[in-house]
Amino acid sequence: MSSHTESRFAADVYGERLERAVELMRVAHLDALLITPGPDLRYLIGSAAESFERLTCLVIPADGATPSVVIPKLELASLSGSAAGELGLQILDWVDGVDPYQLVKSTLHAGSRVAVADAMPALHLIPLAQSVSGLPASATPVLRELRMIKGAAEIDALRRAGAAIDRVHARMGEFLAAGRTEAEVGAAIERAIVEEGHLEAAFVIVGSGPHGADPHHHVSERRIERGDVVVIDIGGPVEPGYFSDSTRTYVLGEPAPEVAAKFDVLEQAQAAAVAAARPGVTAASVDAAAREVLTEAGFGAAFVHRTGHGIGLSVHEEPYIVAGNDLVLRPGMAFSIEPGIYFRGEWGARIEDIVIVTEDGCESMNHRPHGLTVL
Amino acid sequence: MSSHTESRFAADVYGERLERAVELMRVAHLDALLITPGPDLRYLIGSAAESFERLTCLVIPADGATPSVVIPKLELASLSGSAAGELGLQILDWVDGVDPYQLVKSTLHAGSRVAVADAMPALHLIPLAQSVSGLPASATPVLRELRMIKGAAEIDALRRAGAAIDRVHARMGEFLAAGRTEAEVGAAIERAIVEEGHLEAAFVIVGSGPHGADPHHHVSERRIERGDVVVIDIGGPVEPGYFSDSTRTYVLGEPAPEVAAKFDVLEQAQAAAVAAARPGVTAASVDAAAREVLTEAGFGAAFVHRTGHGIGLSVHEEPYIVAGNDLVLRPGMAFSIEPGIYFRGEWGARIEDIVIVTEDGCESMNHRPHGLTVL
Repeated sequence: MSSHTESRFAADVYGERLERAVELMRVAHLDALLITPGPDLRYLIGSAAESFERLTCLVIPADGATPSVVIPKLELASLSGSAAGELGLQILDWVDGVDPYQLVKSTLHAGSRVAVADAMPALHLIPLAQSVSGLPASATPVLRELRMIKGAAEIDALRRAGAAIDRVHARMGEFLAAGRTEAEVGAAIERAIVEEGHLEAAFVIVGSGPHGADPHHHVSERRIERGDVVVIDIGGPVEPGYFSDSTRTYVLGEPAPEVAAKFDVLEQAQAAAVAAARPGVTAASVDAAAREVLTEAGFGAAFVHRTGHGIGLSVHEEPYIVAGNDLVLRPGMAFSIEPGIYFRGEWGARIEDIVIVTEDGCESMNHRPHGLTVL
Repeated sequence: MSSHTESRFAADVYGERLERAVELMRVAHLDALLITPGPDLRYLIGSAAESFERLTCLVIPADGATPSVVIPKLELASLSGSAAGELGLQILDWVDGVDPYQLVKSTLHAGSRVAVADAMPALHLIPLAQSVSGLPASATPVLRELRMIKGAAEIDALRRAGAAIDRVHARMGEFLAAGRTEAEVGAAIERAIVEEGHLEAAFVIVGSGPHGADPHHHVSERRIERGDVVVIDIGGPVEPGYFSDSTRTYVLGEPAPEVAAKFDVLEQAQAAAVAAARPGVTAASVDAAAREVLTEAGFGAAFVHRTGHGIGLSVHEEPYIVAGNDLVLRPGMAFSIEPGIYFRGEWGARIEDIVIVTEDGCESMNHRPHGLTVL
């Protein structure tokens, strides 16, 4: 849904980002970035444009020339909320019948080495590749470097997102009860996500009983029973587009001793990863910190996914907290720490906070108790 | 939101689609289709998978071999609702650390000419192009031909969608009133869209007064006034994923004579396009039928966009009802007929129905009165 009015930071925030993008393009030996609608476009000029079949494309040349926005005339209004005007970008509008890929080409020097946004669909990438210069590179090395390090305004937005989703978890007793279906509970949570300050509910997982053992379960018609362990993983965007994402595990009645014991280990694993997250260590080492605790307790195999993902204008972005990722953490990086344990056909549990790396550790955006909450 | 459970047609519907895809690939001299999550994947195997950064990809070989689904192990559950199991597709799951693009390559003959879904993001298209065979072709010639002609089950779904959005328009007096902001009215309409049987509200345009003159306006904090002309363009998906999309124009109090007169011409233009839509004529001729009525009345310039777009699993898909489109209409094609008139800074109006081409004309999915509705 895009029924909310567009919002963004002050124009100078975007001006600085565009300048940094030019610096990073030069390091990467790129001549231009081509950015179609999606989180990269929103990051660079504050535009939440959502066009699909008609090309909208920001062109940022590495030579310092003014960036251009190629955009359907019909969708010009979608730029009015962005920083494009204040930043003095060149607007190249086009009407049905014009070839917008040639319009992009007209902004480039011959033989330019271009890179495209991750989100650019094949629908546009294939004709751009044909009219410009063969298979483009990925703009990700530039955009990842920019987007991965959150600035003060972004950290503020992530804090607001965290507080908003905490308020939803704090109200879980209103929604989650034996006798209701997961879908009913999910619908109530969706409403609360909006009531507590999100623009919309982006995802709601209500994984009750055996469904909790599927990390990617959403909701179902299963009726929740007394004694169920229930994984609740929820989030959505707050203005101007930054996401919350927090998981807590609940139990309807006192948990079985074996469940409580295993959950205690999970809580230690999550805390160990949070304690490990600081500047100078690798993303992989944070994953390992959580995994070691579970492995030592004898159920490392029950932790079937990575420990976390970056978050910001996308729910999933760099840095990924995963084995093999040698990326060194730096202040301003924001990501989830969300180990889980999954026992097929029985139950599952997960604890997830968003943290931001600080000068000497990390700050959590979420402050709800981590324990198995008895409802 | 994906908090609803997945739904789809019976497996044989998808089996026939896959067979047709193979036939069309051969005509197009393609060796394989690579389909990532999006409406094409949903169309072909009934999977509403939404993975982004981890590759999920249906591979359909033209040589008649069994299609494969390359999918992260973690997301295997997302296939359980699809027809992949009943159709006996080969499942190639992968875990973090494995190169999924090589897994795709392993299913292809050397030198295969592959085509990719329009929705495939650069994130996957670039590494696939690097590991497979250079810049792929677009799968659109195949998928467009398939998806453009709706089958009986799809027509039934579009009828249900049309009836559901008609029920929302029928209730407009509950939502639209002077003194409310467009955003407030939009929020109430969103709820009604779900109440009346949609899975979610996909878009809500409340264009009041001068905002009605922007065809792509969504909602704003503008407070609606007595006398305003208000464009309401709304829709969303019904099970299993087919969209409604209907626009009506309302006025708060009696319209000014000039507004009423111009609206009458718009109503004639919309009716003329509906009357023109039948097998054997071009998409362009339907656009021309609406445009001629407005041009003859002296305000053709106020109609700034194409007459319509195809609809189905996507809100916008082929066929596009636009000047220059020589595509010949055939029974089963579904599209909007939505001429509009826009007077910058003053007001705008649009009338939109979804129609499906029949053997000798077209059938409208929407049955609300077309006139300027006085509230």
